[in-house]
Amino acid sequence: MENKTVDNYLVDAQKWIYEAAANIKSKMNEPLEIDTKSNSNDLVTELDKETERFFASKIREKYPNDFLYSEEGYGDKLSNFNGTVWVIDPIDGTMNFVHQKRNFAISVGIYQEGIGEIGFIYNVMDDVLYSAVRGKGAYRNNSKLPMLKDDVKVETSIIALNSLWACPNNKINEKKVQQMIKDTRGTRSYGSAALEFAFLAEGMVDGYLTMTLSPWDFAAGKIIYEEVGGITTQADGEPVDMLNANTIFASNRNIYDDILRNYVDLK
Amino acid sequence: MENKTVDNYLVDAQKWIYEAAANIKSKMNEPLEIDTKSNSNDLVTELDKETERFFASKIREKYPNDFLYSEEGYGDKLSNFNGTVWVIDPIDGTMNFVHQKRNFAISVGIYQEGIGEIGFIYNVMDDVLYSAVRGKGAYRNNSKLPMLKDDVKVETSIIALNSLWACPNNKINEKKVQQMIKDTRGTRSYGSAALEFAFLAEGMVDGYLTMTLSPWDFAAGKIIYEEVGGITTQADGEPVDMLNANTIFASNRNIYDDILRNYVDLK
Repeated sequence: MENKTVDNYLVDAQKWIYEAAANIKSKMNEPLEIDTKSNSNDLVTELDKETERFFASKIREKYPNDFLYSEEGYGDKLSNFNGTVWVIDPIDGTMNFVHQKRNFAISVGIYQEGIGEIGFIYNVMDDVLYSAVRGKGAYRNNSKLPMLKDDVKVETSIIALNSLWACPNNKINEKKVQQMIKDTRGTRSYGSAALEFAFLAEGMVDGYLTMTLSPWDFAAGKIIYEEVGGITTQADGEPVDMLNANTIFASNRNIYDDILRNYVDLK
Repeated sequence: MENKTVDNYLVDAQKWIYEAAANIKSKMNEPLEIDTKSNSNDLVTELDKETERFFASKIREKYPNDFLYSEEGYGDKLSNFNGTVWVIDPIDGTMNFVHQKRNFAISVGIYQEGIGEIGFIYNVMDDVLYSAVRGKGAYRNNSKLPMLKDDVKVETSIIALNSLWACPNNKINEKKVQQMIKDTRGTRSYGSAALEFAFLAEGMVDGYLTMTLSPWDFAAGKIIYEEVGGITTQADGEPVDMLNANTIFASNRNIYDDILRNYVDLK
């Protein structure tokens, strides 16, 4: 992407993220209408939808040739990632949004010809914006994030993990996950994939294993994490699929091979 | 406790907490000497010890008749909770402190004749002070926390849980814990018992189940949580034991009986 184009995208995306966040904050304490999607714990509120519509209208007005790939249905139906694609989760961590009124994020990734060029994750209530441009490093607000440590070991690592994957399930051998829980220093679960990627990029957690993420859950996170040296793939080690649901394993490169080989046994 | 006495304790405890936090922040980015205690993941740094020594010296100077019951060994050996006892964890969430440089807390509970009178949990890096005086309500900084919701259901509750307890272990039937994970809306794991109590008090999580807490891990949290209507007991439903390690189940009273009966099967 040309520098001038990148600058335009950066300015617009950041402006719209802050506008969307202000709108969310102004309305979040009103009674929320909460629906469920794929299952009873997959929540969506009218603010998820309203925020996505806001991005859709802004992008279509300013960048009419771009595509939008997003969670709540106001984007485009895509069969490829040709051209420029905005991949947006308007509120990542909707359960946190509903139950906690914090620990949720706006996630915006901009892809060109399938390559992640720009990523934003905005922790709305903490007012922390994580951002990255491919090849230019990652930032937490205005501070450049350091490259990940190069001495991380499995036995002293902290892994972001939903405890569901330590229970019998149809995606991954839970016995191996249980062994990972015992062999690592500990696990954490924050309830927002975008924030879990942000915490990966900060080195707060060293890995993140999960069985069901949509592209908008990790589109920005993957770009940001790569800028500090992190790896994001499907949990079988294959490149992520930007058009479908993915299993995901993202980690510091020091532990990536060990954990995939020893603890990830997909069904 | 008399009002005047309470006021003195409140002023002093808060002052010392802020002083201790300032000292921690000023030194936390120096190389830390990290030791392990009961196991390789039970960490302690010299700042844990220094912070506890700071509280010990302040308490002994100002309140020479009081006792100190604390994590790192600078307190008193107690066989009962007669008199006034300060129960202190100088840095709760040491693993977070070491790995994340945030998400840790200073926890101070003040007990008189075994009754929790005053509790403080200070989220150092977020600069959020949770506090309570028995019978006077709980606060997040200067905002009074509302009473917990009275319509919480198991199937829409969020439980704080270390994923370890979903793995085979010698404390609790992991199959029942796994069923709880599936039957509730979700679990979270933040890595600091004190902060998990703070989040309980805010209603961000509805329950917290754990198998190994020392009195200093929950002494303040229990006082704060009770002020918003929450229940804290051992995981067999018995009152907590302030002198020994405990299994702990703390929750909103709407779900307390159901979860204890249906999902907590101690070994």
